[in-house]
Amino acid sequence: MIIRIEPDSDIPIYIQLTNQIIEGIAKGDLKPGEFLPSVRAFAADLGVNMHTVNKSYHELEKKGIIEIVPKSGAVIKRHSHIDQEAYERLYQMLKPQIAEGLVLGIEKEELVDLIEKIINEMKKNP
Amino acid sequence: MIIRIEPDSDIPIYIQLTNQIIEGIAKGDLKPGEFLPSVRAFAADLGVNMHTVNKSYHELEKKGIIEIVPKSGAVIKRHSHIDQEAYERLYQMLKPQIAEGLVLGIEKEELVDLIEKIINEMKKNP
Repeated sequence: MIIRIEPDSDIPIYIQLTNQIIEGIAKGDLKPGEFLPSVRAFAADLGVNMHTVNKSYHELEKKGIIEIVPKSGAVIKRHSHIDQEAYERLYQMLKPQIAEGLVLGIEKEELVDLIEKIINEMKKNP
Repeated sequence: MIIRIEPDSDIPIYIQLTNQIIEGIAKGDLKPGEFLPSVRAFAADLGVNMHTVNKSYHELEKKGIIEIVPKSGAVIKRHSHIDQEAYERLYQMLKPQIAEGLVLGIEKEELVDLIEKIINEMKKNP
């Protein structure tokens, strides 16, 4: 899996990294039960600060996507069906963005098409 | 339109304010051509720092949702159809969140239903 960090982006590097790891899992490039690289190795590999990788791993842990196991590392968790709390969080995250799209003039049908396009991009190798 | 600020939320106050203004426009409570309150009045009204309201207005301006007119204030812009740049930005914002939902175990159909539910909440008074 290739991680692309854009240092000049408006998006903080730890969020770029977090998002790409999540997308990697969604696409099936990274699988539940697999370990992410150690913070030190990943930071060296990406040419970023260890603190950045650490912050990203804690963000992923907070979201319930990985578990940080002392002395072993960051392991990708297995999920069956979304729980109520994660569903509510997703709703709260999506709401302002959908509102923004509508305010900027996207049509309902275009928005549903966009969502389906993104879902299909994710589910290439399930 | 009622703005509810949750000081204890994980979400910074200026983002809570930004999101609620966007949702207010999406719902039709605030309309293109209308002015938002002055920074001073709004801050006093909400019991937040003027800097917070200012930051929110600049965020809304950056997103292309309002225009800050010197000596007049912050006016809500009118949009016809979404432009390519805003569409691309929306795609980039939605992608990691949809990936996160899928990783946490939401089904494709449930996700499309959730999006449609949010759209319908927004379009009550168009």
